[in-house]
Amino acid sequence: MSDLIKIAVDAMGGDGSPKKIIDGIILNHSTNKNNFFKIFGDKNKIDPLIRGKIPAEFFELIHTEKKIESTDSPLEGAKRGKDTSMWLAIQSVKDKEADIIISAGNTGALLVVSKLNLKMIENIDKPALSALWPNKKGMSVVLDLGANIECSSKNLSDFSIMGASLYTSLYPNDKPNVALLNIGSEELKGNDTIKETYQLLNEKKSDNYNFAGYIEGNHLMDGEVNVIVSDGFTGNVALKTHLFTILCLV
Amino acid sequence: MSDLIKIAVDAMGGDGSPKKIIDGIILNHSTNKNNFFKIFGDKNKIDPLIRGKIPAEFFELIHTEKKIESTDSPLEGAKRGKDTSMWLAIQSVKDKEADIIISAGNTGALLVVSKLNLKMIENIDKPALSALWPNKKGMSVVLDLGANIECSSKNLSDFSIMGASLYTSLYPNDKPNVALLNIGSEELKGNDTIKETYQLLNEKKSDNYNFAGYIEGNHLMDGEVNVIVSDGFTGNVALKTHLFTILCLV
Repeated sequence: MSDLIKIAVDAMGGDGSPKKIIDGIILNHSTNKNNFFKIFGDKNKIDPLIRGKIPAEFFELIHTEKKIESTDSPLEGAKRGKDTSMWLAIQSVKDKEADIIISAGNTGALLVVSKLNLKMIENIDKPALSALWPNKKGMSVVLDLGANIECSSKNLSDFSIMGASLYTSLYPNDKPNVALLNIGSEELKGNDTIKETYQLLNEKKSDNYNFAGYIEGNHLMDGEVNVIVSDGFTGNVALKTHLFTILCLV
Repeated sequence: MSDLIKIAVDAMGGDGSPKKIIDGIILNHSTNKNNFFKIFGDKNKIDPLIRGKIPAEFFELIHTEKKIESTDSPLEGAKRGKDTSMWLAIQSVKDKEADIIISAGNTGALLVVSKLNLKMIENIDKPALSALWPNKKGMSVVLDLGANIECSSKNLSDFSIMGASLYTSLYPNDKPNVALLNIGSEELKGNDTIKETYQLLNEKKSDNYNFAGYIEGNHLMDGEVNVIVSDGFTGNVALKTHLFTILCLV
């Protein structure tokens, strides 16, 4: 058991929960026996969905009837208390009872409750939302996708470090190329914040990644850049425009 | 002749100019005899491309050897003088010798030289770049696509008026729905500027358009909204991400 990766799951968040969440756990277990699931939520609803579907030594149910609603503001969500399924799941990572936490629930609350409970990495001011974005050669890490509407050059510079770390943990053999999402590839393009970030990253040499300058929206899928850094507003619009275009065309 | 629409064309701007530009004029003329082209550029290069391809009564060549380069900054472009092909083409609209001006050249210079020569509409502070964006039901007007990196709520409110006017001139039978591009559809989402713009547009009732609130990137193609308003940074990233996704998938 101790070799298994311990995954805390907020079973009560997101559309179609808890069934969709539990179905996901069962699907994962069908091909991967390396994970142990600590499942937080309403035992009466979850137990019939999972019992007999995966062996008892691969999961644990932690009962709570309280949950954060998708319509809550981030603060309303946090104020529902320390015994919601999301809070308890996050708390289990803080208490080192789980290695990571997964929730499909209220994203704003997830950020706020996580920041309250889990410390930020030293010198990093803000958490970011990230996704893997398909390109012609593989996957890019893109961040921030909406956690931070307004970002300073320090934030964007931090996201470069965070994104490069995530990329390297996924693809340990590659030294990632990091670029800033901008409206042109020339140095004079963009707003003051992005130009300041360019200067910061250009001056700071890192052993962990190469700074590749600016990237335009039409080059996101080329695969030359592995980590794409943006403020949360632009990143969110780009993500939604892009994903919906794919959905609409395939 | 006087019934023809007079189109001033900067023949020397853009990749593959002047040939691509003149080919476009010839292509247009093959299906549309309502346009008269005032073509500005190097006569020695343009004359062999057009002579004999369309009748002489449908075009006029205005010779200049000077042109704005794509690598010029907007101000560098403007400082090349009043006898570049772009400047002369714009000037002809000011002098009422042409109805509109078309250029595939340096966009920044086009904005600056146009603003210097052609007055802004009263009470409108900034010009915007606009495009027709295909949706499930037809076309939407989207602006700004990159002219204004940072926009105030006044600018965004102006763009609503400008976009609605453009839409109505293209589709006179429809009263357009106007929406602000944002990261969520709830009123509390977005940055301060976009929230202020929401308030401005919500309070100001217009006979010319309906204010439809916020629109997210994944709903741009639904066709429920006819005019989509954004700052130039976000709009540019959305446009490039979107168009490239289509190019990549078709």
